[in-house]
This record gives sequence, structure tokens and C-alpha cells, in this order.
Amino acid sequence: MSALSQDTRFMRAAIALSLRGLGRTAPNPNVGCIIVRDGTIVGRGWTQPGGRPHAEAQALAQADGVTEGATAYVTLEPCFHLSPRGPRCVELLHRAKVARVVIAAPDPDPRTNGQSLAWLREQGIDVSVGLLRAEAEAAMTAFFARQMLGRPAVTLKLGLSLDGCIACADGTSQWITGATARAHAHLLRASHDAILVGRGTWWADKPRLDVRLSGLEDRAPRRILLGHGTAPEGWTLIDDPARIADLEGVSSILIEGGAQTAAAFLRADLVDRLVLYRAPILIGGGKPAIGDIGLPSLDVAHGRWQRADRRPLGEDMMEVYARTRAS
Amino acid sequence: MSALSQDTRFMRAAIALSLRGLGRTAPNPNVGCIIVRDGTIVGRGWTQPGGRPHAEAQALAQADGVTEGATAYVTLEPCFHLSPRGPRCVELLHRAKVARVVIAAPDPDPRTNGQSLAWLREQGIDVSVGLLRAEAEAAMTAFFARQMLGRPAVTLKLGLSLDGCIACADGTSQWITGATARAHAHLLRASHDAILVGRGTWWADKPRLDVRLSGLEDRAPRRILLGHGTAPEGWTLIDDPARIADLEGVSSILIEGGAQTAAAFLRADLVDRLVLYRAPILIGGGKPAIGDIGLPSLDVAHGRWQRADRRPLGEDMMEVYARTRAS
Repeated sequence: MSALSQDTRFMRAAIALSLRGLGRTAPNPNVGCIIVRDGTIVGRGWTQPGGRPHAEAQALAQADGVTEGATAYVTLEPCFHLSPRGPRCVELLHRAKVARVVIAAPDPDPRTNGQSLAWLREQGIDVSVGLLRAEAEAAMTAFFARQMLGRPAVTLKLGLSLDGCIACADGTSQWITGATARAHAHLLRASHDAILVGRGTWWADKPRLDVRLSGLEDRAPRRILLGHGTAPEGWTLIDDPARIADLEGVSSILIEGGAQTAAAFLRADLVDRLVLYRAPILIGGGKPAIGDIGLPSLDVAHGRWQRADRRPLGEDMMEVYARTRAS
Repeated sequence: MSALSQDTRFMRAAIALSLRGLGRTAPNPNVGCIIVRDGTIVGRGWTQPGGRPHAEAQALAQADGVTEGATAYVTLEPCFHLSPRGPRCVELLHRAKVARVVIAAPDPDPRTNGQSLAWLREQGIDVSVGLLRAEAEAAMTAFFARQMLGRPAVTLKLGLSLDGCIACADGTSQWITGATARAHAHLLRASHDAILVGRGTWWADKPRLDVRLSGLEDRAPRRILLGHGTAPEGWTLIDDPARIADLEGVSSILIEGGAQTAAAFLRADLVDRLVLYRAPILIGGGKPAIGDIGLPSLDVAHGRWQRADRRPLGEDMMEVYARTRAS
């Protein structure tokens, strides 16, 4: 195996590890790290719930001293800034005497951006940046949205029929999608910092919005309500989609309903990703998935969404679309 | 190559040939036939426009005498009944001295059903039935619907957004899908005997419903209008979906719009196939694809449609669903 393809494999593994922290590290990024010495993985780490320890610290601790001359694969540029909560990762890597650091994505945070690369190189460490950068950034979408857009990343989830209905005319929606798709939707919940519904959905369904998957019960994200008035107990109330920017410690939000709430976020162009669970049924004359989004013409509708994933889940089909934005 | 896999390959080729007659042979089936002698294809035929010559007659004519001891691959049991329009295919095969006849599907027409098999065997010809039967029947869906259901096969075509809209709130629908999907929809027209729209669509769009594909301009199917009153020139008027059974020489119908017409056919359970061209756009608050279909509950909606095909067409996705019916 060539050195290049080894690097790619190890970085891919680091990205896979990073996903374990999804929805649990905000405002910190969910980073993954792998330490390799003489072709053997000696340490694996990912950002822990609450944001500490960092992935590098965890991986180095696991390597337990056998790190001299090793290579560290990190999905994000290691932190440079001082924090009362733990040591700087650049120093940890230097002290561990690693010979090489392979980084997927530079850290957009101005307290680190580029400074770690320079500092590590000054210490005589071989540093490279950019390997699987797009994949790594996709795995840390929430963190990048916070840094680049100044607000949480927003996913709109819809369970709908072939003809685009989310319920029958009488409001019945149990069940449009099957058990596999519904379980996947709970995984989706577990990977977001917060879940948001509109006042109408809250009133009609009094949704629990917890994660009903064995072993993941403690993952219930924060609950946000879009509406006016007073917040029900255990909920945070916002009166405008733009207010999501003010939600501290929230880097990702999953919108779970209903059609007017979805429309409000789409109208404000605040949706970054659509996750559609599409059942092979026709409802006909049911409740449409999305209310008026103020589309001025069909031309404008095109070129905004790009298919990012598609897979069958039982009888249903999951389709993921990403908002295309000029970067 | 084993004899079995050769048979399968030749039958597959015969089925491919049969599709050339789609939408042009009603009330006759669109059959395909291949004559093979010493491992070489010596004749290829498919039912010609208007229903004659039959596939077997055409293939044998092309083989031009070198058919003694050959094998004939036919997608449907050769005809047994006498017709003023041409010779019986069983006699043609016998006269051609073929040694073997491989048939995909038995002919449900009581004038032939099983009788050809028996008669050919009596003449000492080796006859087998059932190879790729399901595929062959799928290629002759229109004929089988006429024979088994007593009415044309019905395809409902929809060009829609991710949220199930077929137009903006103001009725604009040009264009939801892209050029590739629209060209494919014209191919779909060319493969049906008739096209049907509702009075509303006719009034709003005055649709030409012709085939705008180079070389296929002559394929314009018959035009049927669902509604009341008098038929516009060049149109056949029916006042109820069930009346499609009375349309002579029509074995397949493509429903092109609108939402109420689609709903009327779905309510009557007269749709056999959905062809959805789905564009990667959101409209939000637009015109829903399908009106009220009288669904009593969500349970009933399940188990009716099975995904039969799915392929990208440019930016759009084509999805085909077949109505599951107890046979």
C-alpha cells in the first residue's frame, strides 16, 4: 500500500470517529484523531460530550507514551488558544514527540486559524493540511455553520408520501413511514444539539422529542419552540427563525414540524439540509409538507438543492439534499 | 456457455425487440421473436404497427428459408386462431420446420391459450414455456391488462417537486423538471396508445399532447378527455374513468393531468403504474399533485405500490411504482 493511500485510510477512520461526538460537543467541534506508529494505530480519540477532552488529548492518552516519531491524523487543525478547561492540543502533540501531523481541515476559529500549523512546523514537526478536507468539514457541519454563518446548522426533516403529504386531511400521520425510517429519524435526533417544532405541532402532538433508541436514551437534545407567548417547561421559546443564532451551545438544529414552521425557515433561507423519509404511498388531498415559502418564480427554485445521499430504509426511501451556497 | 444461459440471452433479446411495438399494436400484443440456427440469429421480428405482421411472421421471413431445425424464441405463445388478416403463427412455425419453440408467456386469449403449445407438440416440435415470463408479461402490460382486467393499462405520470407540487400557487409549471425528464416523458407518450387529461387541464393548457422527439413525431397517441359536454375536435370524451374499458383499440393510457383527474382514477383504483419525475426543488404552498382519493385511513394506503424502477434523468429522479394486485 502506498503512503498516500495509507494516509487516506487513517484519515477516513479519524473522520468516522469524529461522528461519535455529533450533537454532543457544542460549541466545540466534533473532532476525530488517530495516532499511528510504525503502521499501527496506537491511539484513537474523539471530542467527548461537553467538548472535553479534545480528540487529540484522548488519542494521545490512549497511546500511553509510545508516541515518539508517530503520525497524528486529526480532522481539524489542533487548537492553539489557551483554555482554562484543558491544555492546548498543539503542545500536547509537541510534548508527545510526534514526527508528523496530518490535518484534514484548517480551523476557521481566528484564535487558532493557521497559527497551529505554523507553530508545529517551527517545532520541526512535518505538517500537512487538506487531506479529505470536504469529508471532514461535512462531518463537522454544525461547528462550521457556527463559525462561517454565525448560526447553527439547520436540518429539516420530513416524513412524507409520494405525493408530498405529511398527514391525511384529518391530521392523522401515524404512520406514514415504517419502523426502520422512524428509528433512523431518532438517530437523526441524537446527532443534533437541539430539536425545534412550531407552536401548532407542539399544541397538537405534545411531542416528547426524545430519543427512543436503546442505549441512546440520554441523548435527548434541547427542545426549542418557534412561536409567541411563554415557553412550556423544558422548552426554549424563540419568536423568529433568525433567533437561532442567539441559542448558546447550540450548533445544530433539527426541525421536526410542521408545514408552517418549515416554511418560515425556508423563507428565511435558514435550512442547510433536507432529510426526507419518503413512504411508497399516496395520500391524495392530505396535508402538504411545506407552507408558502414566498417563491417568486419557478426559476428561483432551481439550483438550490443538491442530492447528497439516498438509501432505502425498509419500504421507505431516505433522500438527503444539501443547500448549495456560494462559499 | 450453457444452453440455459443461451436461452435466457436470446429470450431477453426477444423481449427487447417486443418493446419496439409499444403503443402501436393495440389491440394486438407487442410480441418479440428471434430465430436461432446453429447458435446464430437468423431472424428477428416484432409485431408491426397496427398489429400485423406478427413477430413470428416477420422473424421467419427475415430468416428466409434457413429455419429447418432452428429454435424460435417468442415472448408470447404464438397465435392459434384463424384471422382474415394473416396466417396462424403456429402453422408458420411448423411449415418453417423449426425444431424447438421457447415461449416466455402463455397467451391468456381463450382462442389460443394452451392450444398452440399442444398443437406444436403434436407436430413433434420441442416446446417449453415460462422462460422470463414475468419480464415478458411486463413488456406486454397493455395487452395483459386488456385480457385480464378487461380494460387498458393505466399509467399516471407526474412531474413534481420534492414537496409534491405540480405547479406554483399561481398555476405556473414551466418548468419543474429538466429537459432530460421532459424528453423521457415524450418517450412515455410514444409508448402508450392514448393520452388522457381532465377538462381543467385541457382548458388551462390546451395541451398538444404530441410527441416532440425527432423521428417519433408520427407517434402521437389518441387523445382522451375526462369530462362532460361535447368533445373538442380530435378528442374522445369519456365522462367516467370506468369508461376506458369501452375505448376500442386502446390497451394503454397515460394520464397527464391534473390533480382531480389523477384522483378520480386513483379513487376508482384504475391506476396500474406511477411514473414520477421528481425535481430537486421545493415549491412550498403550491398545487398538490393529487386531489382527494377518498382514503379511509393511513393503513389502507400501505402495501399498494411497489417500486419498480428508479433512475436519474439529468438533475431529476424518475421513480416508477407498480400497483400490487393479487393475481
